[in-house]
Amino acid sequence: MKLDEILQKIEPIDESFRKKAMERNDNLLMPLRAMGRLHEISEQLAAIYRTLKPKMEKGAVFVMAGDHGVVEEGVSSFPQEVTGLMFNAFLNDLATVSVLGKLEGLDIILADIGSKFDPSNIKNFKNEFVAKKVVSGTRNFTREPAMTKEEAIRSIEAGIEITLKYIKEKKLDVVITGEMGIGNTTPSAAIGAVITGSRVEDMTGKGAGLNIEGVKRKIDVIKRGIEIHKPDPEDPIDILSKVGGAEIGAIAGIILAAAYSKIPAIIDGFISTAGALLAYKLNSDARGYMIAGHCSEEPGHIRMLNYLNIKPILNLNMRLGEGTGAVLALPIVKQAANMISNVATFEEAGIPK
Amino acid sequence: MKLDEILQKIEPIDESFRKKAMERNDNLLMPLRAMGRLHEISEQLAAIYRTLKPKMEKGAVFVMAGDHGVVEEGVSSFPQEVTGLMFNAFLNDLATVSVLGKLEGLDIILADIGSKFDPSNIKNFKNEFVAKKVVSGTRNFTREPAMTKEEAIRSIEAGIEITLKYIKEKKLDVVITGEMGIGNTTPSAAIGAVITGSRVEDMTGKGAGLNIEGVKRKIDVIKRGIEIHKPDPEDPIDILSKVGGAEIGAIAGIILAAAYSKIPAIIDGFISTAGALLAYKLNSDARGYMIAGHCSEEPGHIRMLNYLNIKPILNLNMRLGEGTGAVLALPIVKQAANMISNVATFEEAGIPK
Repeated sequence: MKLDEILQKIEPIDESFRKKAMERNDNLLMPLRAMGRLHEISEQLAAIYRTLKPKMEKGAVFVMAGDHGVVEEGVSSFPQEVTGLMFNAFLNDLATVSVLGKLEGLDIILADIGSKFDPSNIKNFKNEFVAKKVVSGTRNFTREPAMTKEEAIRSIEAGIEITLKYIKEKKLDVVITGEMGIGNTTPSAAIGAVITGSRVEDMTGKGAGLNIEGVKRKIDVIKRGIEIHKPDPEDPIDILSKVGGAEIGAIAGIILAAAYSKIPAIIDGFISTAGALLAYKLNSDARGYMIAGHCSEEPGHIRMLNYLNIKPILNLNMRLGEGTGAVLALPIVKQAANMISNVATFEEAGIPK
Repeated sequence: MKLDEILQKIEPIDESFRKKAMERNDNLLMPLRAMGRLHEISEQLAAIYRTLKPKMEKGAVFVMAGDHGVVEEGVSSFPQEVTGLMFNAFLNDLATVSVLGKLEGLDIILADIGSKFDPSNIKNFKNEFVAKKVVSGTRNFTREPAMTKEEAIRSIEAGIEITLKYIKEKKLDVVITGEMGIGNTTPSAAIGAVITGSRVEDMTGKGAGLNIEGVKRKIDVIKRGIEIHKPDPEDPIDILSKVGGAEIGAIAGIILAAAYSKIPAIIDGFISTAGALLAYKLNSDARGYMIAGHCSEEPGHIRMLNYLNIKPILNLNMRLGEGTGAVLALPIVKQAANMISNVATFEEAGIPK
């Protein structure tokens, strides 16, 4: 499906079901709203699925991979080759998100959207792999735009296409965003700074493990990229093409595909939320389908979440990405659905309120 | 097993396994300690189970029930009869902890340690029920001690006995504390104030839903109880008997039984943590086996956790009890075990670090 088409077809979540869910929550066999955040999540799920008995049975983690020309500027503590080397780990359950995802009963789908790696030699893999390269690494945005506008759009459309395919084939009722890309906190911070209007200093952290000098350099690199290209804060395609990354576009695509399909997208950490910002700017109705799995240690993450006005479920000082924070939050989301679907009301239990 | 005997037999967790687990975590295929709290939990599990491949396969929630004479003083927003009326809900999967616990594959074990309810008429139940009444409701501690010292000890021993029985019969490798008892935030706050040395005002909240007047009355009731009986902060049996409750003693018993059995006890909210304080005061080595599932909305809870120096996993503004917060945290604890057991190291994955 083309980007323009899906943007026109996304419907907002159904607030009438949120209201009905609030009424049911108010009568559940417990002190009023004693389950706190779980009530809120259950009401969002009711509004997403258009039912008072939401149920989540089949989910998948989409790990979108890409490389970044800007790593030439020394913004990452790992070499660029690691992106490709990790493919084997994701596909054979050696990487964290695959290990965690499997315990949770999730399918792991690795998609190469923009890596510099040639995946044609990978053999013997246990998980789904999708070859959908839009760029072979982005360009260094301190010198030229990271992608053309066409590439930026195609990266989002790749995410949409992959996600819609698996939603249909696997009958997914929940999707989880994930990513892999050495250097990808740099374009994510750039996107976050432009969209939220935050200072680059407040949006930039150590990523996978930069020291203080490295963080200073990263801030300078991001500032230069924004200064040279002046991305328009109201034009997500302009931002994505100038200072973004292909896997970040694909994450926006996951979220748009989930919204179009009326199922929730559980958002992982900093990079995933940069994708969520783009999806929101493309169609603000997509926000209702977003659930923030966790708040990462990357300092800009909470600013992005605040801009989106969505509250993270977990706060476990994590900063890995891959989708791990969202996978950890999934059981809590499932329990919210379970609670509103299956806990009795006072009346049903025959106990005076 | 008698209390004295188990207290002598509890062994501390094995710090040598924590150290080895830290070494493995430092080499996992990710930026250094990028999974934050999950590493810490995995290291505690390694030290508890004495292995670098911890695995959690079978758990149970122990819902300890009791009534409280002090509700005569108007410290609860629900009538005392609700404790007994809830038995049917727990046993037939209508209550929140049973609904959530079932989804998580947990056994639900309801034990009557001190309710005023006669459970002999309950029929047709799906879950385990244990009749182990030590008192038929405690006495009003603004007038006389809540229990005798013998009753207090027997309430702990009831918890130990029930927990050890099910650990053996069901081959449990993790236990979860839960409770039900109208009015039981009042004795819990009293225990918390005495042990942590906090002001009663800082330890007392609205419980199931008191208004401001009710909270003031509750503070006054707790202050009077402590003033009249002067429980010795260093004598947990003295505290439990004078201002405690039978189900709180039984929760201390769950934790001691878990520590004795070298398996973790996931602690629920405010009332459960009052039980944890007693267990810690009875044998400080029990602390190493405690995992705090969540931080509740009851304002004294974080003070109790700080006193124990254990960090809660979740913060979801919950205040239900029953064991719900601990059940919600269990998947995260399991994932910590899964991570250290199954994620590859850089070396194992053949990727340069």
